[in-house]
Amino acid sequence: MPLTGQSIIGYRRGNTSGAQLRAFNPATREELDPVYHSSSLTEVAEAADLAFQAFSTFGWLSGKKRAVFLRRIAEKVEALGEELVERAVAESALPLARIRAERGRTVSQLRFFADIIDEGSWVDARIDFADPARQPVPKPDVRSMLRPLGPIVVFGASNFPLAFSVAGGDTASAFAAGNPVIVLAHYSHPGTAELVGLAIRDAASELGLPEGVFSLLYDAGYEVARALVAHPHIKGGGFTGSRSGGTTLLKIATSRPEPIPFYAEMSSVNPVFVLPNALKTRSESLAKGLHGSVTLGVGQFCTNPGVVITTGDDAGFVSQLAALLSETQPGAMLNRRISSSYESAVAERMTRTNVTTRVAQKDAIEAAGRKCQASAALFETDTKSWLADETLHSEIFGPTTIIVHAAGKADLLEIARKLEGNLTATIHGTEEDLRDNADLIAVLETKVGRILFNGFPTGVEVCQAMVHGGPYPATSDSRTTSVGARAILRFARPVCYQDFPESALPDELKTANQLGILRLVGGRYIREMEQKQST
Amino acid sequence: MPLTGQSIIGYRRGNTSGAQLRAFNPATREELDPVYHSSSLTEVAEAADLAFQAFSTFGWLSGKKRAVFLRRIAEKVEALGEELVERAVAESALPLARIRAERGRTVSQLRFFADIIDEGSWVDARIDFADPARQPVPKPDVRSMLRPLGPIVVFGASNFPLAFSVAGGDTASAFAAGNPVIVLAHYSHPGTAELVGLAIRDAASELGLPEGVFSLLYDAGYEVARALVAHPHIKGGGFTGSRSGGTTLLKIATSRPEPIPFYAEMSSVNPVFVLPNALKTRSESLAKGLHGSVTLGVGQFCTNPGVVITTGDDAGFVSQLAALLSETQPGAMLNRRISSSYESAVAERMTRTNVTTRVAQKDAIEAAGRKCQASAALFETDTKSWLADETLHSEIFGPTTIIVHAAGKADLLEIARKLEGNLTATIHGTEEDLRDNADLIAVLETKVGRILFNGFPTGVEVCQAMVHGGPYPATSDSRTTSVGARAILRFARPVCYQDFPESALPDELKTANQLGILRLVGGRYIREMEQKQST
Repeated sequence: MPLTGQSIIGYRRGNTSGAQLRAFNPATREELDPVYHSSSLTEVAEAADLAFQAFSTFGWLSGKKRAVFLRRIAEKVEALGEELVERAVAESALPLARIRAERGRTVSQLRFFADIIDEGSWVDARIDFADPARQPVPKPDVRSMLRPLGPIVVFGASNFPLAFSVAGGDTASAFAAGNPVIVLAHYSHPGTAELVGLAIRDAASELGLPEGVFSLLYDAGYEVARALVAHPHIKGGGFTGSRSGGTTLLKIATSRPEPIPFYAEMSSVNPVFVLPNALKTRSESLAKGLHGSVTLGVGQFCTNPGVVITTGDDAGFVSQLAALLSETQPGAMLNRRISSSYESAVAERMTRTNVTTRVAQKDAIEAAGRKCQASAALFETDTKSWLADETLHSEIFGPTTIIVHAAGKADLLEIARKLEGNLTATIHGTEEDLRDNADLIAVLETKVGRILFNGFPTGVEVCQAMVHGGPYPATSDSRTTSVGARAILRFARPVCYQDFPESALPDELKTANQLGILRLVGGRYIREMEQKQST
Repeated sequence: MPLTGQSIIGYRRGNTSGAQLRAFNPATREELDPVYHSSSLTEVAEAADLAFQAFSTFGWLSGKKRAVFLRRIAEKVEALGEELVERAVAESALPLARIRAERGRTVSQLRFFADIIDEGSWVDARIDFADPARQPVPKPDVRSMLRPLGPIVVFGASNFPLAFSVAGGDTASAFAAGNPVIVLAHYSHPGTAELVGLAIRDAASELGLPEGVFSLLYDAGYEVARALVAHPHIKGGGFTGSRSGGTTLLKIATSRPEPIPFYAEMSSVNPVFVLPNALKTRSESLAKGLHGSVTLGVGQFCTNPGVVITTGDDAGFVSQLAALLSETQPGAMLNRRISSSYESAVAERMTRTNVTTRVAQKDAIEAAGRKCQASAALFETDTKSWLADETLHSEIFGPTTIIVHAAGKADLLEIARKLEGNLTATIHGTEEDLRDNADLIAVLETKVGRILFNGFPTGVEVCQAMVHGGPYPATSDSRTTSVGARAILRFARPVCYQDFPESALPDELKTANQLGILRLVGGRYIREMEQKQST
């Protein structure tokens, strides 16, 4: 499919008069064709108007019909074949196998949400029947369910050109809930975005959906991003990226005349606590596992373990980890901005008082940086120094971590209490360790969305129970997750119908329950077709 | 019980050195004893520290134990007997019968949430079992459930001295979810607040709960409110009150170093659409019903119908409504600030171009205002004038409404599209009208939390399905409700446990499901004790 470098605004293509941007291959350090064109503010308004119009239709389609749309998108993305894979590799420097796997995850996510809305119980339908005889006042008939928010803006993520970009998790869950979506492509992978955007457009068009159900815009700067979040037709947003970017957009979203929910997934150091029994019995496998997690995707995961707290005899463990990291070849990062941020953050950390640089040579870091690459780095410090130096609490996006030596349980607790919000925390130890450190778990639970036992935080399972969220700055809204089934809840709100006649109620709330969904009726969870789903 | 005028900080009483405030009886226009004392910023910090400490215990109590606490509070509130009723009447000028009913609702709400957490399924427990054999990577065991946010600040509401104040809906739902609560008493009813606060304190103390589970603070100005919302230990807030107050606190909540969810229920005009068939067949009962809803509680309900859109022959209806409103005696308002705001807002509306004042005399309004009372007012305008004058879109808190004459369906739609967010919208008509106006319903659905058919918005049923929420400015977060079972969800967030051993999992997530709650296991809703709850 020939790329044209233009925005996709409903069923038409954008203008070519805006500021230009081009993709850059971080592995070859070459610019890629074609030239992309920033969307104009007029085009932002057009996309928003189209989305607003589309909402009145798309928002009322049945879950089963929206499921067809999601599955069609998945097919269309698959049909892009190697062209998509090659372009995504070229724009991200991520390995071929990783991009193939990410494509698999992307289409699985679309089908996962299709299954959820096909089944339909996610809408949390509730019915309280009337009681006209109740004293002192009659009881009305009250029914409610989750309904879509309205047009949603989704920001492509540099580190997931497929699974968290144009047809990624935010888009899939926003569509699933019944919302039109406007995606702002990430400047790092405009071609990947265009290919996937055209796939969504074609799926919508083939199914006769209103054109405004989807648009894809480009932005060489920040103007389009700001305008989208501020636009009165936009009713929510999803973002995965840096803390500064997320916080800036969040501020726009919350200070609009009508504030809107804005889900920014931003920054996380994903602490790993290694307890004495783990160090004693399996320091080598721990070092290997941690090395894999720290360097996976050149450290460019939001769940990358950026701080490791050890207590007990960790000399062997740290040596093994240091050896593995120093043997790690530099790897190309996603783009120049990320590699230069990594380079300067590592260089800055090397200057911190009371921080020992175990792995990292200034020359190696700089040489890698000049090639848009990252060279792994390992730091060490003690509890007191870590507690005192807040720069050590922040994420460095890339293949680096810091070991914090804790003297015992009191140190562990103090470190846990000092942590900012995170996506994950991990404990390595025995079952007894978990019991003995119940207070530590209790503190961590208030700081993170997911606690792992004897695992590594990278690799986020897409399933009903997953929580990929956490208190600020991990995300802007700790009540939500951007991965897993609950992600759909971000883009819906409850609406209540009082004393409505059956004919005017949504199908989900009609007494007969022909959809066979699980509902809370008169305070009891029931579904007519009980056998279909329950044991 | 002798009132002392001091804050309640855990199990001790506050100092008496702060700025003073006294309750005022709006009916007799006399100040009431005792003198109340603003909490100091030190006391704010003490209450927050105590709440933080209490959270580590209270947050882990079983739902069944927290239910005992809620029920004990209900008993203690009932045990306050006539002393509470009399004080609340004196501080609010609300009629005795209303306060008794409100006390009934308050204790019912406490028991309603007790039942919900006793049963336990609200935590949305989800289990995805491991599959170690899965290719290419093993599937981990992932389980998650809703957990409490942490210490919550609740602001007492002037118009519900019991049901939305110290032991009201916000407090009940925050406690139910497992959060300590700090209440800031409303300056209008400090004595009512103290009585109820002591009831909660005694319930907590008798059950041996950590003292920080509850505190009650006072504020003669705004300093304590601001400090509470900004305090790092506070993880969420609930507020019912004015748009300016709610927006100010919301800004503090969202611009803290760690932004927190803040649920402000603020401002709503609750449009009522009266369609031709309704006017034709029952204009008299409509006028009576609307009159009752507009003047109920001297118009001091958030669901007060502040704009009535008619289409068709409404001359009889408007005359009847005008007659009823002009015969309505002035009633004492909740406090001086509210009555003077009402007086000036009505006076201002009387000056608007193209607005006809049907009921309201300048002298009567002013005379009532001087006595802390409100005299009912009725305005009329046409669609074009209403659309052009945004002051007419805002709430006037009190017994007044404005009739907007619409020429037909196009006008109705245009008005609906122009509305800000509201708690409710109401349609009066026939079942056919609902069908014929599906586009109107679709627009209203995006603007409100609850749509009523042939009813009146005042009188909010406390039940599983109720939604008392809506887009800004009705509330600060359209994804939530402050009345009904879903209110508990405001104060919880999902937490995920990956590969945890059974012994370290919360009971709700242990495989055996001894609690018998409904869970989503492997993508299917099941509960071991299926017979107990399902049909």
